[in-house]
Amino acid sequence: MVTSKPSQKSEPLSAAWTDHSELASGWRIASFLPIFEWLPRYGRADIAGDLMAAAVVAIMLVPQSMAYAMLAGLPLQVGLYASILPLLLYALLGSSRVLAVGPVAMVSLITASVLAPLATAGAADYVNLALFLALLVGLLQVVMGIARLGFLVNFLSHPVISGFTSAAALVIGFGQAKHLLGIALDRPERPYQVFMELARGLSATNVVTLGLGAGSIGILLFFQFGLKDLLQRVGVAKPLAIAVAKSGPLVAVLVATLLVGIMELNKEANVKVVGEIPTGLPPLSWPTAAWDQLGTLFKAALVVVFVGYMESIAISQTLASRRRQKVDANQELIALGVANVGASFTGGYPVTGGFSRSVVNFEAGAKTPLASVGTATLVALTVAFLTPMFYYIPHAVLAAVIVVAVASLVDWRMPFRLWRSNKADAFALVVTFVAVFALGIEIGVLVGMGTSLGLFLWRTSRPHIAVVGRLGNSESFRNVQRREVTTHPAVLAIRVDESLYFANTKYLEDALLDKVAEHPAVEHLLLVGSGINYVDASAVETLRELIARLQDAGVAFHLADVKGPVLDQLHRAGLIGELGEDHVFLSTHEAMAALTNKPPTW
Amino acid sequence: MVTSKPSQKSEPLSAAWTDHSELASGWRIASFLPIFEWLPRYGRADIAGDLMAAAVVAIMLVPQSMAYAMLAGLPLQVGLYASILPLLLYALLGSSRVLAVGPVAMVSLITASVLAPLATAGAADYVNLALFLALLVGLLQVVMGIARLGFLVNFLSHPVISGFTSAAALVIGFGQAKHLLGIALDRPERPYQVFMELARGLSATNVVTLGLGAGSIGILLFFQFGLKDLLQRVGVAKPLAIAVAKSGPLVAVLVATLLVGIMELNKEANVKVVGEIPTGLPPLSWPTAAWDQLGTLFKAALVVVFVGYMESIAISQTLASRRRQKVDANQELIALGVANVGASFTGGYPVTGGFSRSVVNFEAGAKTPLASVGTATLVALTVAFLTPMFYYIPHAVLAAVIVVAVASLVDWRMPFRLWRSNKADAFALVVTFVAVFALGIEIGVLVGMGTSLGLFLWRTSRPHIAVVGRLGNSESFRNVQRREVTTHPAVLAIRVDESLYFANTKYLEDALLDKVAEHPAVEHLLLVGSGINYVDASAVETLRELIARLQDAGVAFHLADVKGPVLDQLHRAGLIGELGEDHVFLSTHEAMAALTNKPPTW
Repeated sequence: MVTSKPSQKSEPLSAAWTDHSELASGWRIASFLPIFEWLPRYGRADIAGDLMAAAVVAIMLVPQSMAYAMLAGLPLQVGLYASILPLLLYALLGSSRVLAVGPVAMVSLITASVLAPLATAGAADYVNLALFLALLVGLLQVVMGIARLGFLVNFLSHPVISGFTSAAALVIGFGQAKHLLGIALDRPERPYQVFMELARGLSATNVVTLGLGAGSIGILLFFQFGLKDLLQRVGVAKPLAIAVAKSGPLVAVLVATLLVGIMELNKEANVKVVGEIPTGLPPLSWPTAAWDQLGTLFKAALVVVFVGYMESIAISQTLASRRRQKVDANQELIALGVANVGASFTGGYPVTGGFSRSVVNFEAGAKTPLASVGTATLVALTVAFLTPMFYYIPHAVLAAVIVVAVASLVDWRMPFRLWRSNKADAFALVVTFVAVFALGIEIGVLVGMGTSLGLFLWRTSRPHIAVVGRLGNSESFRNVQRREVTTHPAVLAIRVDESLYFANTKYLEDALLDKVAEHPAVEHLLLVGSGINYVDASAVETLRELIARLQDAGVAFHLADVKGPVLDQLHRAGLIGELGEDHVFLSTHEAMAALTNKPPTW
Repeated sequence: MVTSKPSQKSEPLSAAWTDHSELASGWRIASFLPIFEWLPRYGRADIAGDLMAAAVVAIMLVPQSMAYAMLAGLPLQVGLYASILPLLLYALLGSSRVLAVGPVAMVSLITASVLAPLATAGAADYVNLALFLALLVGLLQVVMGIARLGFLVNFLSHPVISGFTSAAALVIGFGQAKHLLGIALDRPERPYQVFMELARGLSATNVVTLGLGAGSIGILLFFQFGLKDLLQRVGVAKPLAIAVAKSGPLVAVLVATLLVGIMELNKEANVKVVGEIPTGLPPLSWPTAAWDQLGTLFKAALVVVFVGYMESIAISQTLASRRRQKVDANQELIALGVANVGASFTGGYPVTGGFSRSVVNFEAGAKTPLASVGTATLVALTVAFLTPMFYYIPHAVLAAVIVVAVASLVDWRMPFRLWRSNKADAFALVVTFVAVFALGIEIGVLVGMGTSLGLFLWRTSRPHIAVVGRLGNSESFRNVQRREVTTHPAVLAIRVDESLYFANTKYLEDALLDKVAEHPAVEHLLLVGSGINYVDASAVETLRELIARLQDAGVAFHLADVKGPVLDQLHRAGLIGELGEDHVFLSTHEAMAALTNKPPTW
């Protein structure tokens, strides 16, 4: 047994602390430049996994980056440009070993939604604004990382993230329907309007395009769900099986492109193709914006920062914990920020850590960020030499790549699961989901956040209170409505299950007075403070009034089980002095023992 | 001793419950029409007090209502009109016995600030909009009262109210300086600009006006601070002493008006006077607004509702509790709402329960709302017959009435008191104070509210945690840093002093893992849940991750002292099932007894 003295601030770290060291958050030079952490230890064992992962991710990334650029309303090379320098910069600075940075669906959707009112999709000033958005996003992320504001993402609750992700995935998916059907549609002003637009345009469906799209989806689904098991069953090694299975987008693009190119479907059947893509490494770019666009872009950048960071930190933490590693939330912000600044100066648009590609990177065996360096090299080679081969890629196959990628993000089961366990959480999810569709993607996420916080405030503003009694002969006191306990007619012990703060003090005063009114024989009200974690100035005022009103009604007020920090606050506010130290008991047990054996002191 | 069974929902009301009945919140017809509560019991004993109070309040109200109308930029009769029907309607519906309804300084300031961009002060459409604002305010209050949203005012914390009140009082006071100096100034766009404007206009000071203003302030201060004691010392009865002391505004107005009228200072010295005020009872009015003004007016109405209701409920609750009466927050909203609707239809602008006049009403002996009926009658007689006598009232004396009335609202000591007891509360006060000056009165109160809520969220997002140990031989476990307690090297018992919700779960996971890393010999982590009042879906997910990570590190996870509602939530979310019932202990005592005598089960 160890006896601690009150003066002892905290136990010193023993020599054996490394036992649990992988769990501790540290502070070292390497936490600013994580490359110093992993590069010196790089060894032969890491090479094979990194190379394989580099190839597999590049095979996914080339078609995806073009598809997401299309989703963002940008020329397709912008997606490729965003997949080179940002990856290298993140490899240098990122604290996750396996995060795959680059264009992602959700950020592309927000980019399109923000820029639509400012410029015409695909035009030069539209591209310039997309690059400027990346610059703003990057600078904001760096500043927030340095200011250690990474914790802010915690204010997005799981239900809000789930509702937002599902809704955004559906918005993205249905937004691609026009490419799969081969019809021209205006961008709807609000996401839900896409259904009306589609219904109107349906009769103009290009059947050949639809066939290409449907076929591509078929190939993608086969690769995604059937192929890996099939390959492993016939004895193909797991890493190779993964590599082959993840080449679905590449195969679909190849098949569709060959079909279109050979049969000249772009002329014969009016199938939309990507056309010419400039060849060569990314250009150096210096994006600009007009003063009057800055406000809009700044707000949009905040949304991109939040949504992008949320996606990135979620997957990087999940993957890191699988290998007992840790990611540093603020370092991640800085690394993503620098990656975005890099994107903006090399013709790219906002990037973040992608969910699905990071999982693939991890599963394909990536051990260090060198895998991303490999991926970037492969993408760079592609834009330097292979873009002429992209001429005949039909839009429909890129749309199919997007639709299949986002389909897995829709979580139908979550709302039902939440409804069973926690109605308020289910409500926040549904509100977020509906708001994204009805009001748009940026406002939707804000509405979701507001709903989560509002529900939390609402809950804390009308806390649970319980009359407690002694459990058997123990020193424990529990709710009289839940357990068989003994109470004393002259002493009413009430546990308040919430901190006392301005939003709930009036409610609690009323509730406590009502309880006293229900128990006419009561001479002592004992407030059990085990659930009170804080009291503010408003609560102190209300306690003062409560004590005075109880006194007038002939009821003495006492406190028990009040935590140290709360007792300090009450002392500083002078309330303990006014109440008298003899009304404050260390535990409910002591209070009950004292109060049931003596008459009231008032 | 009484033994409660868990099935028993709550104890039945005994016949003796009326012992504490004045504390209970009830539900009766009279709570919808409180007049049925007090009128049938009206007796001779009430008459004298009500009559005296009616006269005293009317003596205050006539000059004040004109002064506040001037503050609101309205013709002075609008203030008088707002002091007749609203008082009668509140007497019918209000749940406070002594609240004095009518124009107040803060609401007048907001009215001026809102209407300034929409119309020219004093013009017909300006008046019309002020009346329309009263209509909107009234309807909103009635709807909010019926929807039982009175609790919303609780989201304004004491520090915010204090900072707002002090700043608004200073804004009002300095805004009157131009009338005291007799100079013409534009309304500043932002409150803080009033200082620059005054500095610029100072050289044009009208010395006669300044003399009238300074003299009026002297009279008012003498009446307010010196006279009552003086009268009581020379043996004047207390009610009469109060009546005389409260006639300060009337005396100041009389003296100044006589001086100006006799010496024709309005012509001789260019002293601004109120001029002609229409004679006769209030006209029936039907205010209107253009569609494009509705948005602005609606937002302004919300601010008026909040600020007005806040002032009113604070004073009515304070006064009610002095006589062991109760006010019903929602009924108050309805009563004030109907009063405002009444104001808008009889040429009046927004009203609420005034702080100082209600105190005077109470102290002068008002027993029932009949006092307000008397006040309204006296005001009605004044507008019907006496307004020609108001021609020579100088603006300076009305400004003096305002300045002296609001000066007492500035609370210099509060920020220092708060700083000593609670830094966060002091911060919220200062932010609100500065925001009112820098950004304006309406935005200021919103900034204050946001700051209060933000600080609360911030605090709950990084909660206090404590390693706890056994206190002596008791069953109590307290913080090892605060008290001399015994711990066991293999069991780390940590108390988390906050509900687990999305904004703090990641922080807590890190904090708990760090604690485990600091204690290498630990085999069991016991989470003491006495301070956990709620868990949401995000927290359940994080707990799952935490349990898995601890398991990997060879540390078993246990729960103790978890409250019933929280345990229910954990059950519903499936976490208890996964963890195993044998890891959940009723109390820390039981958990420690069990864990220190047996090896880990993992």
